Amino acid sequence: MEGIAIMTSGGDAAGMNPAVLSAVEYSRQKGFKPYLVRDGLRGLIDNNISEATKEDTSGILHRGGTVLRSSRSLRFFEYEHRKTAYDNLQKLGINKLIIIGGDGSFSALNQFYEDFKIPFAGIPATIDNDIPGTDYCLGVDTALNVIRESIDSIRDTANSFRRAFVIETMGRDCGYLAMASALSSGAEICIAPEIEYDLDSIGERLRVDCEGGRDYIIAIVAEGTNMGEYLTRWISTNLKMDTRLTVLGHVQRGGSPTVRDRIMAYKFAAAAVESLIAGNTNQIMVYKEGTFGSIPIHEVTDSKCSLDPILVKLASRLAK
Amino acid sequence: MEGIAIMTSGGDAAGMNPAVLSAVEYSRQKGFKPYLVRDGLRGLIDNNISEATKEDTSGILHRGGTVLRSSRSLRFFEYEHRKTAYDNLQKLGINKLIIIGGDGSFSALNQFYEDFKIPFAGIPATIDNDIPGTDYCLGVDTALNVIRESIDSIRDTANSFRRAFVIETMGRDCGYLAMASALSSGAEICIAPEIEYDLDSIGERLRVDCEGGRDYIIAIVAEGTNMGEYLTRWISTNLKMDTRLTVLGHVQRGGSPTVRDRIMAYKFAAAAVESLIAGNTNQIMVYKEGTFGSIPIHEVTDSKCSLDPILVKLASRLAK
Amino acid sequence: MEGIAIMTSGGDAAGMNPAVLSAVEYSRQKGFKPYLVRDGLRGLIDNNISEATKEDTSGILHRGGTVLRSSRSLRFFEYEHRKTAYDNLQKLGINKLIIIGGDGSFSALNQFYEDFKIPFAGIPATIDNDIPGTDYCLGVDTALNVIRESIDSIRDTANSFRRAFVIETMGRDCGYLAMASALSSGAEICIAPEIEYDLDSIGERLRVDCEGGRDYIIAIVAEGTNMGEYLTRWISTNLKMDTRLTVLGHVQRGGSPTVRDRIMAYKFAAAAVESLIAGNTNQIMVYKEGTFGSIPIHEVTDSKCSLDPILVKLASRLAK
Amino acid sequence: MEGIAIMTSGGDAAGMNPAVLSAVEYSRQKGFKPYLVRDGLRGLIDNNISEATKEDTSGILHRGGTVLRSSRSLRFFEYEHRKTAYDNLQKLGINKLIIIGGDGSFSALNQFYEDFKIPFAGIPATIDNDIPGTDYCLGVDTALNVIRESIDSIRDTANSFRRAFVIETMGRDCGYLAMASALSSGAEICIAPEIEYDLDSIGERLRVDCEGGRDYIIAIVAEGTNMGEYLTRWISTNLKMDTRLTVLGHVQRGGSPTVRDRIMAYKFAAAAVESLIAGNTNQIMVYKEGTFGSIPIHEVTDSKCSLDPILVKLASRLAK
Repeated sequence: MEGIAIMTSGGDAAGMNPAVLSAVEYSRQKGFKPYLVRDGLRGLIDNNISEATKEDTSGILHRGGTVLRSSRSLRFFEYEHRKTAYDNLQKLGINKLIIIGGDGSFSALNQFYEDFKIPFAGIPATIDNDIPGTDYCLGVDTALNVIRESIDSIRDTANSFRRAFVIETMGRDCGYLAMASALSSGAEICIAPEIEYDLDSIGERLRVDCEGGRDYIIAIVAEGTNMGEYLTRWISTNLKMDTRLTVLGHVQRGGSPTVRDRIMAYKFAAAAVESLIAGNTNQIMVYKEGTFGSIPIHEVTDSKCSLDPILVKLASRLAK
Repeated sequence: MEGIAIMTSGGDAAGMNPAVLSAVEYSRQKGFKPYLVRDGLRGLIDNNISEATKEDTSGILHRGGTVLRSSRSLRFFEYEHRKTAYDNLQKLGINKLIIIGGDGSFSALNQFYEDFKIPFAGIPATIDNDIPGTDYCLGVDTALNVIRESIDSIRDTANSFRRAFVIETMGRDCGYLAMASALSSGAEICIAPEIEYDLDSIGERLRVDCEGGRDYIIAIVAEGTNMGEYLTRWISTNLKMDTRLTVLGHVQRGGSPTVRDRIMAYKFAAAAVESLIAGNTNQIMVYKEGTFGSIPIHEVTDSKCSLDPILVKLASRLAK
Repeated sequence: MEGIAIMTSGGDAAGMNPAVLSAVEYSRQKGFKPYLVRDGLRGLIDNNISEATKEDTSGILHRGGTVLRSSRSLRFFEYEHRKTAYDNLQKLGINKLIIIGGDGSFSALNQFYEDFKIPFAGIPATIDNDIPGTDYCLGVDTALNVIRESIDSIRDTANSFRRAFVIETMGRDCGYLAMASALSSGAEICIAPEIEYDLDSIGERLRVDCEGGRDYIIAIVAEGTNMGEYLTRWISTNLKMDTRLTVLGHVQRGGSPTVRDRIMAYKFAAAAVESLIAGNTNQIMVYKEGTFGSIPIHEVTDSKCSLDPILVKLASRLAK
Repeated sequence: MEGIAIMTSGGDAAGMNPAVLSAVEYSRQKGFKPYLVRDGLRGLIDNNISEATKEDTSGILHRGGTVLRSSRSLRFFEYEHRKTAYDNLQKLGINKLIIIGGDGSFSALNQFYEDFKIPFAGIPATIDNDIPGTDYCLGVDTALNVIRESIDSIRDTANSFRRAFVIETMGRDCGYLAMASALSSGAEICIAPEIEYDLDSIGERLRVDCEGGRDYIIAIVAEGTNMGEYLTRWISTNLKMDTRLTVLGHVQRGGSPTVRDRIMAYKFAAAAVESLIAGNTNQIMVYKEGTFGSIPIHEVTDSKCSLDPILVKLASRLAK
């Protein structure tokens, strides 16, 4: 039986565990012998690879994070260490890889393919939702719902005091989490890298609202804009409202995967196994306009992430 | 300003409140004067209709159920009462309706249109996910996540005792909730109206599993199959395992809407207002293969709901 | 090093896992060698006993149910099998037992002590909160919060329809869960074994309420009263309100232990180890009027559970 | 009928709304006419006082924060404004006050009593749990469970990366939240104002643990110690582990009150009404060693908060 190795890499995201479970089960059904690589790329080099047992995947479906763990590995940039990784796989009869993670991890395996012709299939997983070519990355739905509960909680407090709250969401250069959270929580302000903001206009709008009886303000700021502290002072000064900053931080990554993340994980994993069976190399699984498919790795690395235009339009109204 | 009336009807579903809020805000932006009808079709007859105020929609975004309430109204089948409803709308200058509910409610408004030419736009909302022509109905994602938490909770107990649990989900004639829940919770058995089951084969499969160390069994049964009690006895007798039945009941309907239900609510509501502005009559908003659109009411009432074939295929494996 | 064996028995309850973890850690600190018995009393007979490892207790603190599993064992009623259990313990150098469970389990170990003089300390754990002599049993706080979330969810639906909901909580002969849930969820009716109900008076009170604008009714019924279906029909007939019954079932047992159950688990476990060190035999740990202590087993088995009189008084008002 | 005014003051805490509801209902049963003061002490001066209606208290039981809102009022320090407040109460026939909040608010009403002989009863409510004389303040249980969920979520991520997380809890000068959270979440480190820490000893202990296979570290730091950033750097440098800081912030205040906070709210409110009926003045309701009672205000203001010694002892082990 041909071996297939499954691994997670990059920042952790809810949905990684269901994807590991599904990749193991689906590849086994299709006649492969599934292996698990622990500690991401580092585990490939250090031979932290073993055949998947029932115990390995039992009870992981509802757990956040990744039980295979992830890592950052500088060594993988060196040919010598990639060669070690290749030898490890060869000894176990592994000729195919499934990697669940982000575009940095995909690029690393692409280099690995250039060297040793081990094909891989990539499953997009990052709460930032910033991988080009796919509308959805595993972990996003869970992160959004964790953020939603935090905002609902903070609104109780805001409402108790006639206060403003500035809430910073994760997302580095991508404002998806901030925009989707602002929309779904009914926030009054949204500041994200993809949209222009106009503080004068925001101030004007909210002053009218406050005169009309508005009790509190919720503002959502994307981490990548670095605007959290500034906006906090700005609201305090300009709208004369006691204003607090809350940086949600790593709480956003965790939590039991939502149903959507579990089902998307299953479908992505099935698509990845099928893609490898079909003889494809270095394809990234994507969900685009409601359909599952795959695109070559270079289409991911050469493109910029583009966001749902409806979402951007809606969020823009909260930046004015 | 032209009046537009917004109402909810049929079984309640999470996402109805965000849809009401969005329909009010979006129609106001587009120059309409939004009205709210309370108590569904009955409210149309009894003139329980008033202009939407800020207080009406404040703080409803994160609430389950429908603050406009719903009802069943036999009177609406009679022309005389529909005429009363029409007169009520005329007096307020309301020429358009947005209804959030199921296909029975859509049909009622279709008859109303035949009589008085008041166009409506329908937004699909039912946890059963059984409205033909759309892949998604409001409330489904929230219901699935409530079910997920219940199953995760029951698994703790099942695992503590080497027990089997049969869990009945809602859904009348449609097995969507049962199938999606079975898949996303890693259940061992799924019985739904859309798939054939083979108890002998199920028994064979699970006996092997139990010999291999399986500790407990989770079976998901759709309400519409009426199989809950039978399967409970069957597992108890044939697999010699202490087996309990849990009927999840109305807990499934409620809960604060998930982010997905809030965002879908927004998009459906915007589509409904746009459809009415475009001069369409009696269109049902649909989300099909990742795209929002609309179809005429007769395409909904003349068709049968068809389920995601991948889901059906996967669930079928749990019925054998 | 002297061996001490830790086990769970009877119905599972959240808080059992934190108690196992705490008993292992605390007894180890005090110089014992902790052992784990799996599958309850059956495991004692079948020698399913092993020294506690770090892996055994890693990651169990936040899990519901019991990772040691529980069981019902008829064999333990026979001297011959108890002798086998005793021999198993002797071979491992185990002279003390900690049992986490209910009064039936405590009685079984008391008989075991009569035979072989192996002292035990009992930690009360049952969601029914019906063990005499203690105000609190592990699992109760978690169960109450699970029930609370279900009722909050159902209230959304009740409120959407002008409906009544009858909700049956677990608890066999003890109405604690029903009464505490009714009080904390603001229910209109509570039927429990400890209080007399007067349907005429209830009907009178609620008719006035409904005339004054009451939209919906929530009634909580304790399982032990067997009144669920009757009350459902009664409300439907007498208050002319669409009425539904929801039996919460095993969902109530599970879920991640609340902070209160985790901290109480720690304190009960520490008390149990200290009690055994002090040379006590067959004592049950209790929490009474805010203080931890212990009482002899016969005080538990000879008494009847008595409930918080304030709670009973309050709940009585909901039965009239 | 004699008027009784109910208000909330100071930082908001879950449980305030159930306390308001209970105080209204209980005082009404006892023959008082209940009034609500909005915006705390400021509302007394600004005459934001009205008789409690059914609408006021409908649906507030399960909401976090305080629907009566709170405020900080410098004006209340001046006799002139207190006189205005007194006149407002006199006009409405209000001779008694119930205040739900912290010790600063109690002191303000004590001064008010010195001036005008309006007796009050205080209900302790603050997530800091730092009011002398009572073991429990409303809001603590809800805050602890919100923190628990955040830590459980972060542990998923910590575990995925072999990382350390430093988590800062609220609590100003009081380490209760930090200590109870550290214990109930199985943290490895706890730094709180009430306990001495020894970083060398902590380092030694965890180095051994990490050699023995420890994957990640969770450290809980009380806000009042100001140690968050320092400890983050210290772990990173001394234990060579990627370390992140998360400041939980205002998320901790909110959320639907737990069952414990709802039931404690009821009992505190009943005690407050009874205390006023008994003719007591300026008493603070307390829960001490499992019993409800009351103490004079000066016993609160003259004392220092003292913590559960078991908790302190346990937490101390995590500071070494």
